[in-house]
Amino acid sequence: MNSRSQSSKTVSDDLSDFIGRVTIRNISPDVRETAKLHLLDGLATMLGGVNEKSSRLLRRRFSVRKLTGEATVLGSHNKFSAEHAALINGVQGHVLDYDDAQLATLPSRPMGQQTHPTTPVLAAALALAESRRATGAALLNSYIVGLEVACRLGDAVDPSHYLDGFHPTGTLGAFGATAACAQLLRLSPLSIRHALGIAGTLASGLRANRGTMAKGLNAGRAAENGVIATTLAADGFTASENIFDDPMGFFSAACRGRVNTDLLRFGERFFIAKPGIAIKLYPCAGVLHPVLDLTLDLRVRHRIEPNNIDRIRVGLDTNAALPLVYENPKDNLQAKFSLNFAVAVAIVDGKAGLKQFTAERVHDPKIKRLMKRVELVRRPLRQEKHETGVDSEIEIVMIDGAVHRARGSVARGHPSLPASRAEIEDKLRQCAEAPSVAAWLRPLRPPRR
Amino acid sequence: MNSRSQSSKTVSDDLSDFIGRVTIRNISPDVRETAKLHLLDGLATMLGGVNEKSSRLLRRRFSVRKLTGEATVLGSHNKFSAEHAALINGVQGHVLDYDDAQLATLPSRPMGQQTHPTTPVLAAALALAESRRATGAALLNSYIVGLEVACRLGDAVDPSHYLDGFHPTGTLGAFGATAACAQLLRLSPLSIRHALGIAGTLASGLRANRGTMAKGLNAGRAAENGVIATTLAADGFTASENIFDDPMGFFSAACRGRVNTDLLRFGERFFIAKPGIAIKLYPCAGVLHPVLDLTLDLRVRHRIEPNNIDRIRVGLDTNAALPLVYENPKDNLQAKFSLNFAVAVAIVDGKAGLKQFTAERVHDPKIKRLMKRVELVRRPLRQEKHETGVDSEIEIVMIDGAVHRARGSVARGHPSLPASRAEIEDKLRQCAEAPSVAAWLRPLRPPRR
Repeated sequence: MNSRSQSSKTVSDDLSDFIGRVTIRNISPDVRETAKLHLLDGLATMLGGVNEKSSRLLRRRFSVRKLTGEATVLGSHNKFSAEHAALINGVQGHVLDYDDAQLATLPSRPMGQQTHPTTPVLAAALALAESRRATGAALLNSYIVGLEVACRLGDAVDPSHYLDGFHPTGTLGAFGATAACAQLLRLSPLSIRHALGIAGTLASGLRANRGTMAKGLNAGRAAENGVIATTLAADGFTASENIFDDPMGFFSAACRGRVNTDLLRFGERFFIAKPGIAIKLYPCAGVLHPVLDLTLDLRVRHRIEPNNIDRIRVGLDTNAALPLVYENPKDNLQAKFSLNFAVAVAIVDGKAGLKQFTAERVHDPKIKRLMKRVELVRRPLRQEKHETGVDSEIEIVMIDGAVHRARGSVARGHPSLPASRAEIEDKLRQCAEAPSVAAWLRPLRPPRR
Repeated sequence: MNSRSQSSKTVSDDLSDFIGRVTIRNISPDVRETAKLHLLDGLATMLGGVNEKSSRLLRRRFSVRKLTGEATVLGSHNKFSAEHAALINGVQGHVLDYDDAQLATLPSRPMGQQTHPTTPVLAAALALAESRRATGAALLNSYIVGLEVACRLGDAVDPSHYLDGFHPTGTLGAFGATAACAQLLRLSPLSIRHALGIAGTLASGLRANRGTMAKGLNAGRAAENGVIATTLAADGFTASENIFDDPMGFFSAACRGRVNTDLLRFGERFFIAKPGIAIKLYPCAGVLHPVLDLTLDLRVRHRIEPNNIDRIRVGLDTNAALPLVYENPKDNLQAKFSLNFAVAVAIVDGKAGLKQFTAERVHDPKIKRLMKRVELVRRPLRQEKHETGVDSEIEIVMIDGAVHRARGSVARGHPSLPASRAEIEDKLRQCAEAPSVAAWLRPLRPPRR
């Protein structure tokens, strides 16, 4: 499978070539424009996570130290070291399950194996760019390079990496963050290889922490590791120059060397353009998104009132239904993995945004009543499957006997139904609405003319 | 293999019970005395590593930040945050390949699989103990608890963890460091499980970084992770309460769940007592130690002069010889994995201490001449093997035709030939001899009467 083993070039060589070669001028305008939308989306999720408990704990932890402030944490008035800013922005960006997720180029990759690439890459690049006073163009360039590295690795690594319990946003995200920072610092090819060697030895993250604060920590740590690896390498700290392919290296440890290196072509075309990276328009598990689109559409089209509903049946294939383990969620983090809650709140509120996935809405009697009428029907996986998306069906039976049905598989935000700039700006507005965040943002706004 | 899966108690439960239960009063005096010697040995290696480049780079990195100093790095006049002090002391303690190494309870464990337990555990406990003004007894207690956890995990984990490329001192050392810190902070059982969950998601380290600065970083990171995991958990940061056994947890990711949980009995008797932890009396790869004992003994007994030697043949089994890849080492880090250099310098200097494994001695013409006369003979592994130690034979043929032979398998410092307190104190003196270290130590010495 590792077809590269015949060639003398290592993955570290390829990566250091790629990182050293790309400049903003040889990235096409449409890739740049798409990347800017994802960057905006990443800033939104980092603002949205400001008031989560894990974010607050980490900001407090590092604020009480008298650190030389060099980089901003979104929503905070203190400045932090670049690596701590990367860590905290990374946690804020991932804690809501609202950040973008790469697609796969092969049907053999299970949904979820891919990284959430923007959070670790942007959190690292943002912090380092601020501390080094880089230009916006340099930031955008490094962000695109880092996304590319995270996504190609997430595509090429064997599914066993994910299935055994590693969290690719943490493990592979560290390389994406390192690539972005190495590009930003214009490291030499040798230093880039050392930085990747350090990143590999620091890369970590386990999926067992789903539904806890430590899940977001994986994304934050990946960003922090990128800053640490590149700044150490820039100082002359040495590491393996062959961290991916070495028999005691990352690929061996991560998945016993089973990597489809044909998928590790860097710089031919950008992953963000094809197959693309999906933007989330609801802050919850991705498998719920097509159903939420259908639910909200039916509600508007048929002017559905919650009180007139007899029952709601939702069909999903068995695999897609796996993460939906909370029929009666107890808090906002569990609500993100509850079909009953997501559908019920969407019908009652006519929305499924940040204000819906809250502890308060979880305990609303009207929503709780409707949740009891929602039924999940697990369907066997269709043989001809491996089309795009999550096959989803919804049937809403009204008390008066009317039945409303809809079916779909791709949610808005998927690259085949791309989120518009207006939708992303609306998401940003929602994420910036909390009073503390709005207050923090106010001085950043351009003065009115 | 995972016999515990029938029981309802998880490894996290066992560990949190053990960590919460042990007090210095229920540790027997001989275990405490042995632990004190290892603690002294650990301090020696941390002092010995003060002037290595990786240590200097890290101290400089964190010194320039205006940190609230709460913990000491050995050899430094600045104070650091507890986690940075743990990181740097961990690097200093491991960089010389001079720190202690646990034995195995089963012959199926390949040499090298086990952790170097003292470095991550002591570096973490020392930093946290200082920052919380803990007593010496509390430090010793937490150090013993952390050693026990690191060693039992290093013994029980499947060899594939090590063989696939993970560096157990980094990955498993993080749990040892966390156990020590959790004991020191007297965390609740639930917080201990959260701390272990955080430690698992942060645990990392690849063997591909052997012979580079990043190898020591693995040990330092493990110590830092212990401080981070426990202090975050103490603040209420949540994580999986079942990080070892969860299907997406540490054991699954580390070695597809293949763990001999019968070896994970905590608190029945201490690993440090049986099978024990070996202390290194030479700062180089452990497989060289029996040969160095034999070489130095022959030299004294037969008053061997380097100029009168015709050739030196050393027999080692093929596996033991694997790490000895540098016939002509270029620097002090490579010298630690060179049989030719180790034997030659021992004959010329009559010693194989810190002053021998230096860049200067690597380039000494007298040693280089003798290195050419040293020959490594790889022998097939004996079938009845799995005795203790590394079967080693040496034959020194003199120009006058005399032949001196010796054979042995266990080096001084192995628990069956334990290092005396005097030997450890001599090692400490050597490690403290560098002028900068001596100057740093001076004010710490008790005044003369």
